[in-house]
Amino acid sequence: MNDATPKTNRFRLTVAYDGTAYHGWQIQPGVPTIEGELNRALTDLLGEKIAVIGASRTDSGVHALGNIAVFDAKTRIPAEKIAYAVNRRLPDDICVQKSEAVGADFHPRHRESRKTYEYRIWNADFPLPAKRLSHYFTYRPLDPEKMQEAADYLVGEHDFISFCAAGAAPLLEKASDAATLPKEPDDMAAFNRAKSTVRTIYSANVRCNRPAEIIITLTGNGFLYNMVRIIAGTLIEVGYGRFSPAFVNEILAAKDRSKAGPTAPPQGLTLIKYEFPA
Amino acid sequence: MNDATPKTNRFRLTVAYDGTAYHGWQIQPGVPTIEGELNRALTDLLGEKIAVIGASRTDSGVHALGNIAVFDAKTRIPAEKIAYAVNRRLPDDICVQKSEAVGADFHPRHRESRKTYEYRIWNADFPLPAKRLSHYFTYRPLDPEKMQEAADYLVGEHDFISFCAAGAAPLLEKASDAATLPKEPDDMAAFNRAKSTVRTIYSANVRCNRPAEIIITLTGNGFLYNMVRIIAGTLIEVGYGRFSPAFVNEILAAKDRSKAGPTAPPQGLTLIKYEFPA
Repeated sequence: MNDATPKTNRFRLTVAYDGTAYHGWQIQPGVPTIEGELNRALTDLLGEKIAVIGASRTDSGVHALGNIAVFDAKTRIPAEKIAYAVNRRLPDDICVQKSEAVGADFHPRHRESRKTYEYRIWNADFPLPAKRLSHYFTYRPLDPEKMQEAADYLVGEHDFISFCAAGAAPLLEKASDAATLPKEPDDMAAFNRAKSTVRTIYSANVRCNRPAEIIITLTGNGFLYNMVRIIAGTLIEVGYGRFSPAFVNEILAAKDRSKAGPTAPPQGLTLIKYEFPA
Repeated sequence: MNDATPKTNRFRLTVAYDGTAYHGWQIQPGVPTIEGELNRALTDLLGEKIAVIGASRTDSGVHALGNIAVFDAKTRIPAEKIAYAVNRRLPDDICVQKSEAVGADFHPRHRESRKTYEYRIWNADFPLPAKRLSHYFTYRPLDPEKMQEAADYLVGEHDFISFCAAGAAPLLEKASDAATLPKEPDDMAAFNRAKSTVRTIYSANVRCNRPAEIIITLTGNGFLYNMVRIIAGTLIEVGYGRFSPAFVNEILAAKDRSKAGPTAPPQGLTLIKYEFPA
């Protein structure tokens, strides 16, 4: 029959946003959130109640070029056209970059993935207005070579509990979610990893763009709550000369949040991309 | 005597701003402007009525890394400290990058200078939220090599009246200004140039930063009203393939605004710097 109800399919969105105006990803009553805006726009577009599952529940003020949202819907709109249609219903600080069909068992947090984050610093005598919402400003001179030396100690598999917001580890990446997705995760290794504070960092690079920009780029198989911002805060202490680069090893060994540097402010952080190996 | 009133000195500020929230540089009643914010903050800091003279009266939504503001004041604050003190009284989308003493005859528009502007384009399937206030978005593919070929025709001394907002030429860069500055300009060549639509462009470069950013950079001895935005709009037409690169020559020869492309939107434009030869 021509107008038979289509079957339910699963869709994946790659979502970019300027997090400045939002109380983070996760939906909360009475305040604007990325998840809330996506649910509203998709529900409006598709005419059925949509509740997305996000790959990373970014904090208030944190930005993304490629966060991932997954949802199930019975729609005839071709998967790749959903991006255009939903963007017309989103504010201009949120924009879907890609929409595609995925398998019915695809879950963005239970699936193994490579995540890349950037932390951006503006290091000059004065703040630059154009960078104020995307960079952490500090006038105290940083030594990017020392920061790179320190970052090298982070690469590999480590227990990163010293770089996790105190008390937050068991709350992180847990497998609770909306009723539309299956109770059973599709990748038990990723699911079990969620209970541990061991993670692998594949690369940790500190790049200096003259005259004043320093960018820390981290790629790994997962990041604990506030981990990128605590790493950034620690590398900044190294850059100031307050910590030696090798002190990063002691922080890892101590398994104690209080040994690491402060949590760097959210506006410097951007989730760059999620990659899901086939 | 210790507390004799200090003599009047002239100061130069290098000013950066995100123009998004402002109705341009020039003070107007009842709306926020860059000039208005600077006058308020400096008057508050120095305890005498300050009226700055701007080098470039940028339009609503246009940004700057290095616009110039000059003022006279009787202050004992060392010139280089004024930046720190005034920044505490400015909103965070305006920030003085440098303050210095200049000669009593220094006028930022009557003095010969090299001005550099950038026009930024985001050319991808979808807009990127982080670039929405600093780039012009277009999904239609641009050919940056053709744009560079067209830009090459602009280099040199030309009558740029075809690239000037219709009817605006005689209003531009005219020598009216606040009472604190001398009536007589310090550089008659620059003063006379203001009455003409002949300008020299020293360099015109089109740079492509993969995957999606195209930046047009123009350096010249002066720009007519809307000239950079009309050049950008024209190079965009070339990038689309609607104008051939050599058509830029015909536009120059026609001395007719209607031959050139449209005025590109303000948010893509940033005044990068003013350089004053010694």
